[in-house]
Amino acid sequence: MIQGIFTPNLVPFKPDGSINEEELRRMVNWLIEKGITGLYPNGSTGEFIRLSFEERKRVIRVVVEENRGRVPILAGAAETNLAMILEACRAYADLGCTAVSVTGPYYYKVSQDSIEHFFRELARLSPIDIVLYNIPQFSNEISVPVVTRLALDCPRIVGIKDSSRDFPRFLNTLHAIKPQRPEFSCLIGCEEILFPSLQMGGDGGTIATSGVVPEVVMKLYRQFLAGNLAEAQRIQFKLLDLINAMLYGTNFPEGFRAGMSLRGFNLGTTRQLLSPREKSDLEDIRAKIACILADCGFSEAAGACRRPAAASKGALATPTDLTVSVDDVVKDVMAKLRQA
Amino acid sequence: MIQGIFTPNLVPFKPDGSINEEELRRMVNWLIEKGITGLYPNGSTGEFIRLSFEERKRVIRVVVEENRGRVPILAGAAETNLAMILEACRAYADLGCTAVSVTGPYYYKVSQDSIEHFFRELARLSPIDIVLYNIPQFSNEISVPVVTRLALDCPRIVGIKDSSRDFPRFLNTLHAIKPQRPEFSCLIGCEEILFPSLQMGGDGGTIATSGVVPEVVMKLYRQFLAGNLAEAQRIQFKLLDLINAMLYGTNFPEGFRAGMSLRGFNLGTTRQLLSPREKSDLEDIRAKIACILADCGFSEAAGACRRPAAASKGALATPTDLTVSVDDVVKDVMAKLRQA
Amino acid sequence: MIQGIFTPNLVPFKPDGSINEEELRRMVNWLIEKGITGLYPNGSTGEFIRLSFEERKRVIRVVVEENRGRVPILAGAAETNLAMILEACRAYADLGCTAVSVTGPYYYKVSQDSIEHFFRELARLSPIDIVLYNIPQFSNEISVPVVTRLALDCPRIVGIKDSSRDFPRFLNTLHAIKPQRPEFSCLIGCEEILFPSLQMGGDGGTIATSGVVPEVVMKLYRQFLAGNLAEAQRIQFKLLDLINAMLYGTNFPEGFRAGMSLRGFNLGTTRQLLSPREKSDLEDIRAKIACILADCGFSEAAGACRRPAAASKGALATPTDLTVSVDDVVKDVMAKLRQA
Amino acid sequence: MIQGIFTPNLVPFKPDGSINEEELRRMVNWLIEKGITGLYPNGSTGEFIRLSFEERKRVIRVVVEENRGRVPILAGAAETNLAMILEACRAYADLGCTAVSVTGPYYYKVSQDSIEHFFRELARLSPIDIVLYNIPQFSNEISVPVVTRLALDCPRIVGIKDSSRDFPRFLNTLHAIKPQRPEFSCLIGCEEILFPSLQMGGDGGTIATSGVVPEVVMKLYRQFLAGNLAEAQRIQFKLLDLINAMLYGTNFPEGFRAGMSLRGFNLGTTRQLLSPREKSDLEDIRAKIACILADCGFSEAAGACRRPAAASKGALATPTDLTVSVDDVVKDVMAKLRQA
Repeated sequence: MIQGIFTPNLVPFKPDGSINEEELRRMVNWLIEKGITGLYPNGSTGEFIRLSFEERKRVIRVVVEENRGRVPILAGAAETNLAMILEACRAYADLGCTAVSVTGPYYYKVSQDSIEHFFRELARLSPIDIVLYNIPQFSNEISVPVVTRLALDCPRIVGIKDSSRDFPRFLNTLHAIKPQRPEFSCLIGCEEILFPSLQMGGDGGTIATSGVVPEVVMKLYRQFLAGNLAEAQRIQFKLLDLINAMLYGTNFPEGFRAGMSLRGFNLGTTRQLLSPREKSDLEDIRAKIACILADCGFSEAAGACRRPAAASKGALATPTDLTVSVDDVVKDVMAKLRQA
Repeated sequence: MIQGIFTPNLVPFKPDGSINEEELRRMVNWLIEKGITGLYPNGSTGEFIRLSFEERKRVIRVVVEENRGRVPILAGAAETNLAMILEACRAYADLGCTAVSVTGPYYYKVSQDSIEHFFRELARLSPIDIVLYNIPQFSNEISVPVVTRLALDCPRIVGIKDSSRDFPRFLNTLHAIKPQRPEFSCLIGCEEILFPSLQMGGDGGTIATSGVVPEVVMKLYRQFLAGNLAEAQRIQFKLLDLINAMLYGTNFPEGFRAGMSLRGFNLGTTRQLLSPREKSDLEDIRAKIACILADCGFSEAAGACRRPAAASKGALATPTDLTVSVDDVVKDVMAKLRQA
Repeated sequence: MIQGIFTPNLVPFKPDGSINEEELRRMVNWLIEKGITGLYPNGSTGEFIRLSFEERKRVIRVVVEENRGRVPILAGAAETNLAMILEACRAYADLGCTAVSVTGPYYYKVSQDSIEHFFRELARLSPIDIVLYNIPQFSNEISVPVVTRLALDCPRIVGIKDSSRDFPRFLNTLHAIKPQRPEFSCLIGCEEILFPSLQMGGDGGTIATSGVVPEVVMKLYRQFLAGNLAEAQRIQFKLLDLINAMLYGTNFPEGFRAGMSLRGFNLGTTRQLLSPREKSDLEDIRAKIACILADCGFSEAAGACRRPAAASKGALATPTDLTVSVDDVVKDVMAKLRQA
Repeated sequence: MIQGIFTPNLVPFKPDGSINEEELRRMVNWLIEKGITGLYPNGSTGEFIRLSFEERKRVIRVVVEENRGRVPILAGAAETNLAMILEACRAYADLGCTAVSVTGPYYYKVSQDSIEHFFRELARLSPIDIVLYNIPQFSNEISVPVVTRLALDCPRIVGIKDSSRDFPRFLNTLHAIKPQRPEFSCLIGCEEILFPSLQMGGDGGTIATSGVVPEVVMKLYRQFLAGNLAEAQRIQFKLLDLINAMLYGTNFPEGFRAGMSLRGFNLGTTRQLLSPREKSDLEDIRAKIACILADCGFSEAAGACRRPAAASKGALATPTDLTVSVDDVVKDVMAKLRQA
């Protein structure tokens, strides 16, 4: 049964744009040494969609090689047709992965009936266990009734990773499936509610933040397992600032890449181009993340910490209020000029 | 400080369409006797928008009269302009209500800046404490940064009732405000996550289900207060079936009205007309709710319980999969015909 | 049959917040003198939702009185329950209005089945003709199949005003209804596509811009009727800048209120509070609208025209790109400093 | 300059799931013989996302070969990173394609700033002209201001294909760009408004329906060019039924595949699996499309025409009302049984 904290690893790139396999291997070792439960390559955090099919298969091979059997591997296999998904399933089964994770179809809107039928076919044909990956922000939702029927009918489908941020949905999933199939794994993919999901009976999560501060996320998980709920709750709240700083104000997953670079990894340049202005904004965000990391005791990040001035702090601190006012900025600049 | 379970009471109507004040009074007494913490008239469950301004003021007066000071009253005052909201605030303050609840503006889309400015003005002028009411499904969201600034700047604004179903948002609200203003009340308005919200530091909720099964919701709350977390969690999961049955498959709040009628109240006909087909569907939903209530031990509902046939059960049981398949129906009909 | 350009008049307010009836009367006369086909009080542009029910009825009375039978009046009657809508219908019928306009229900999400049943009941009971008002941005959509069935079954329902901005939907409505009921009036409520809608067989529109530049909108309409399609098209494109300037960058309908004030009317302060920053932004938008009006030959607006600097021009000119760039602002400030 | 009707060809598959190249070649010849202006392989209709990169490149090669220079080819090149897009651009340039079409990024939400920067880079590096492909239903929107700046700054970007169904947006695009760069091609990708878009100054469209009834769509276009506006308008309305029948009630582009099969092509099975129920529903839709085609004079489709019974007709005829009523179905079944 799939349980615990799986880390959706980022992908480092070389200056020529190809995957930096050496750094990826170093990252795998570092994460395992820091104690994460399992690895989850080719997730959304791993920018699977910006890789070619060959590169995606290569990423899995590298991660498996470097893992050397130490932790279970959940391999993302969200290809765009059944034949390619099955090709990936066979390859990842041969490599010894624990299971594959497959999203609902993306790009087109597809009916729930088709999605259910698709997963039934996949379950029938796959040589490896399957984890449903629900992420309606980016791909077609897999509805709770469909998840429930698949869980109860298909032994090959062994769990769901739910990144929908919809906690009532997660509880309804637990409620519909667990009494009938307790070993069906319900993983949360929304970092902000990892601890509540564990408390309500969830089995763990795929937590992007665990790639940046594995020490902290694993501490939360261990405190929960030890029954130290108050401490686990305290860590959850403490993580919110870091999560918000990495999630908002830039294209996903740039904030997480910035965070990981502050832990000493060379991520290189993302494949989604950023404008010069966005690169500059990302520098500010990185400086802010550095401060949070430094406050968490990761001294390697302290050097990059730059406390923002009051005005820009407000602008960056909050998920739903990112608009910058011209007036405020002009006032800021004028004030600075007067000081100079 | 506003804490505990506030019941957003339904409004019973007479055959001529006017408010059935006698039944409303009986409802108020019944709820108080069942132990709910407070009353919340003129909420969304109370169909405030389908009443006239005069009727809304009358509902508050009736509830206050019948309450006779026994429980605190949070009075909905979501009028559509500042002058009318202030008129309501003055009236409800004179009646001795504890606070008023005000949504973001509805109908038009309005900027966060305007919403913040509006609540600042309201806080400046109101003679009664204000609870922000965030329900983005129906009205403009009040963003977390706006809520935070209002909470930190305006003593008159004493809490937020969050019906957004967005638990990460609720945690971010707690995290942003509680360390600086611990007595600011954070109430959840999403029944499915009442217990998790309490565990994470929430102060209670406005819970429509507490109007139908006050005994069960108050038991959950008391078990939580007593530290019996496992029991509170068990009740939360048990409530999910009832919540889903009342929320889905009919227009809100018809399912809750059906539930309350099964507890022995005469709700009369809603002001939102239902088609003949929908009335018939609602009968099926009512029969299903009756079974859940009977299973919960409310024997008064047992007589109305009709267990659905297998096929239609699937169609009704689930929030996001309400489509009826022609094939299934035809099969159903054919099966029935063969039996006949 | 309802045809032509109906003007959804704005509502002027006095400093004490009450309706400025004198100015409203002056506005009615001015619009009729400028040649608009009909008046449409209590529309979304007329901020009906921010008035009390008594004020809404008063607005209709004032408009009817001042009209003195010169033009047809389509009276908004989007109250929140059937009894109040019927009270409005009776009142507006008694006053001699041509028809009432009723939106789908707002606030709650309501099923299409309920909406259809509601309009059937309204059609059965109303003493005055009804125009369906589809504005899914603010209220529940009335779907094309529902509109079609209502049009074919209910003689009392004489038309639809479609503000959905969805032109395929408008064409499907025309296609479904006109062959069977040619006198059913299909009015467009989206200013940007008035001319295309006329060309495809629409009957006119409720056009907020016709409250600000009735001369221009009526010229477009007359050129269309005269078969001068190229000229009508030219005017439509010319209007786009004005429409965009009034629609974007501020809360609706502030831009239209700014435009009308530039034509010499005293609109007073809106009931939706604006923050100090938004008031200042609105000044910029007003200055821009003034330039467009001056360019159209309305010399009374010329004095208020302030051409924006290049950088801020970009920021305001476009509907979907209102974000302000820090870089641009810094450049602006630097440029100003160099000048000083 | 890219003008006229470009047909986004469907892709036929063999029983083993591979592309049926022979049938694809036959389709290309048929379309060219029927007079379409140009071909548009690897569009959304062509299910590019369900092909592998190698297959996408192969489709272009086959289409180019079979075309033998007869018509211009707009080649879809919406790969998921810049390197792969450039590889496609180089390949399609070498083959002699006229231009490539590239969507905004899909899967992740990406900022407008990044999207603009991405297209600037692509324009700088591409060896072939680029048409922006705006389809916000499936991928990130390319906002009007971004389109405008790209059009005015980048000679390599020669047009936009707008499938947003947002006609005000299309008019704003024309208005912003054409006065400054008249040869920038504005193509509509929404079949229902092809004629209005042409009348307002659009340059043509990528019209999936032209793959099924090229004779009709080309007649509309030629009537427009000849100035026979009334006739073009009549054809546009006539096409609505066919478009609706192919668009709604099944997953895109199954309805178009059904339509094309009725014209005598062997499309094979789509790569998006359909459930048994959906396959059966699609048979009904196909029968309905057959009737429309037969009514249009395409006698080859007449044999497959099955007029639906009254009740199910209503259920299928309409875009936004696809729910099936249990009552209706039961009535249907009962009626049939009585007949039997």
